[in-house]
Amino acid sequence: MKTRAAVAFEAKKPLEIVEVDLEGPRAGEVLVEIKATGVCHTDAYTLDGLDSEGIFPSILGHEGAGVVVEVGPGVTSVAVGDHVIPLYTPECRQCKSCLSRKTNLCTAIRGTQGKGLMPDGTSRFSYKGQQIFHYMGCSTFSNYTVLPEIAVAKIRKDAPFDTACYVGCGVTTGVGAVVNTAQVEPGANCVVFGLGGIGLNVIQGLKLVGAGMIVGVDINPDREAWGRKFGMTHFVNPKTIDGDLVAHLVALTDGGADYTFDATGNTTVMRQALEACHRGWGESIIIGVAEAGREIATRPFQLVTGRVWKGTAFGGARGRTDTPKIVDWYMDGKIQIDPMITHRLPLERINEAFDLMHAGESIRSVVVY
Amino acid sequence: MKTRAAVAFEAKKPLEIVEVDLEGPRAGEVLVEIKATGVCHTDAYTLDGLDSEGIFPSILGHEGAGVVVEVGPGVTSVAVGDHVIPLYTPECRQCKSCLSRKTNLCTAIRGTQGKGLMPDGTSRFSYKGQQIFHYMGCSTFSNYTVLPEIAVAKIRKDAPFDTACYVGCGVTTGVGAVVNTAQVEPGANCVVFGLGGIGLNVIQGLKLVGAGMIVGVDINPDREAWGRKFGMTHFVNPKTIDGDLVAHLVALTDGGADYTFDATGNTTVMRQALEACHRGWGESIIIGVAEAGREIATRPFQLVTGRVWKGTAFGGARGRTDTPKIVDWYMDGKIQIDPMITHRLPLERINEAFDLMHAGESIRSVVVY
Repeated sequence: MKTRAAVAFEAKKPLEIVEVDLEGPRAGEVLVEIKATGVCHTDAYTLDGLDSEGIFPSILGHEGAGVVVEVGPGVTSVAVGDHVIPLYTPECRQCKSCLSRKTNLCTAIRGTQGKGLMPDGTSRFSYKGQQIFHYMGCSTFSNYTVLPEIAVAKIRKDAPFDTACYVGCGVTTGVGAVVNTAQVEPGANCVVFGLGGIGLNVIQGLKLVGAGMIVGVDINPDREAWGRKFGMTHFVNPKTIDGDLVAHLVALTDGGADYTFDATGNTTVMRQALEACHRGWGESIIIGVAEAGREIATRPFQLVTGRVWKGTAFGGARGRTDTPKIVDWYMDGKIQIDPMITHRLPLERINEAFDLMHAGESIRSVVVY
Repeated sequence: MKTRAAVAFEAKKPLEIVEVDLEGPRAGEVLVEIKATGVCHTDAYTLDGLDSEGIFPSILGHEGAGVVVEVGPGVTSVAVGDHVIPLYTPECRQCKSCLSRKTNLCTAIRGTQGKGLMPDGTSRFSYKGQQIFHYMGCSTFSNYTVLPEIAVAKIRKDAPFDTACYVGCGVTTGVGAVVNTAQVEPGANCVVFGLGGIGLNVIQGLKLVGAGMIVGVDINPDREAWGRKFGMTHFVNPKTIDGDLVAHLVALTDGGADYTFDATGNTTVMRQALEACHRGWGESIIIGVAEAGREIATRPFQLVTGRVWKGTAFGGARGRTDTPKIVDWYMDGKIQIDPMITHRLPLERINEAFDLMHAGESIRSVVVY
């Protein structure tokens, strides 16, 4: 079949909207009509050539929602007509990782997914006879896409596509970092570095679980109002305080935070986030993706005296199990999504979404097909 | 009163055995006759001038066992005749840290202890009228020493002093890192870096909790036999393997270790220990004390993909609560201490204990008064 898609023919060039060829689903695969997709920093990270493992030409996009329109042989867990969210972190429920009970990082199709291919080692996309690679196993910048059955989460049908799509990455990553990875307890004092599309979701996750102080840190003063909208109790702008940021935060939180979250991707900030933790038990969670080659560092004394350094991918959420729950939380009003979708655009204007993000003008732009 | 003590008059000089003056216990303090004391790398670290916060002249030693001979006003938890282990990590049971249920790092007397003083800001030791500083709140290289009541653990009377003293640091640090900090579960695959006085105790802690693979890593081939004596199942000498140590360990443990422990104090090894952890859930515990100014580093991707970086001090053990239990485990035969005490020396020969340690000839030397 033919489908409209925004193709990344090479790094550092705008996406091109063209009609590509899409093969139908093979065994264990499903064809999904994408109804809406968010544009995330990770897409920009790859498009800007910062990801040393980026592959081109490819169809980016990993934060979508849509409807199953065809299933391949052997598919049993979803059916035509089901509403689904594509999962860049699948959940096979059979691999060592899924069975460990300790991680969400299913490894069933990791090898091929990293190469931009379906599990059988081939691509379903092509353009004028040339193979186009999949991206993060999702490629939601195509109106239709093919996914492995284990890489779609079935969600309720009353959830709007243009907000539910955000659960496919940003919402789950931020809320999940609190709920699954840090497992923050009520009353805990927390600091969130970076109040963008991920950080704001960390903040509303903290509000959800009854955290104590919810301190937001951002160098953009406009983000204070955004943070407060989702439950932030204190705002710190590193540019306007006197002296050292870490010392300031330690004093503000009476000895250091119980939990800190880095949602900036900046390795210097990651260190500050660790060192702003309380001696003895403070935990720092790295969410942001750093530039290739960058390293984090600290004195080992920081860890020996009880601080813990962790990270999280997709908020520690098991894709098929936890994503539908987060959609439920949204529909039940436990968390908000609508105010974060600051821009809605047709596919033809998808490059504007990247511009808005780079300019810091959007929290999240969503492409509606 | 007068007491014999090995005094560190300055860094990088041998200890001098002299008779010092010791004031009796004040309110909340106890006078302890030290019967035996281990000589630990941390004492050498300070004596060698590597600790930027080292204070001289002082009486080193922090791994002792002895008998309470006098109690000051208000002391209620121990009495004359009680057998005790001095605690460099006290347990007041009333500070924010003790009440957190999350750490053993009591902060009740932290400020003065770090300055080489008793909680009232003075020293009990002097020599020819000059003040001599306490060390880690213990100073077990003195035959008699004064300690805050909250810094002694009461132990059973049938435990021999010349082995029980090792519970005051090395045994608890190693076994506790497994039991309290990592909370290793039966069957877990583990790697221990550095098979000295701490690493061997990590190994026997792993055996105690039923770990699966217990891999020991050391560049000293003589340590293989030592490791196997306490439960090590595999030995890796980085000098004799082909290629990269981390890749070797990841292959050996089928994807990486569930838990790794650094007992070397070397920041390069600390990084290897983290990166030898299993993707998704492996936890690395830093036990060793690094040289001042040294930093640990890794790519944040290591944490984002699920590895956890932690540290431990005194094995996460609450001094008064947990130390007596570890003495019980020893007396019940659950853990071994006797084979690790490779040398026993009188106080007059204490400098030989440092030489043996630096030469790698001892696991633990104990000074018996």
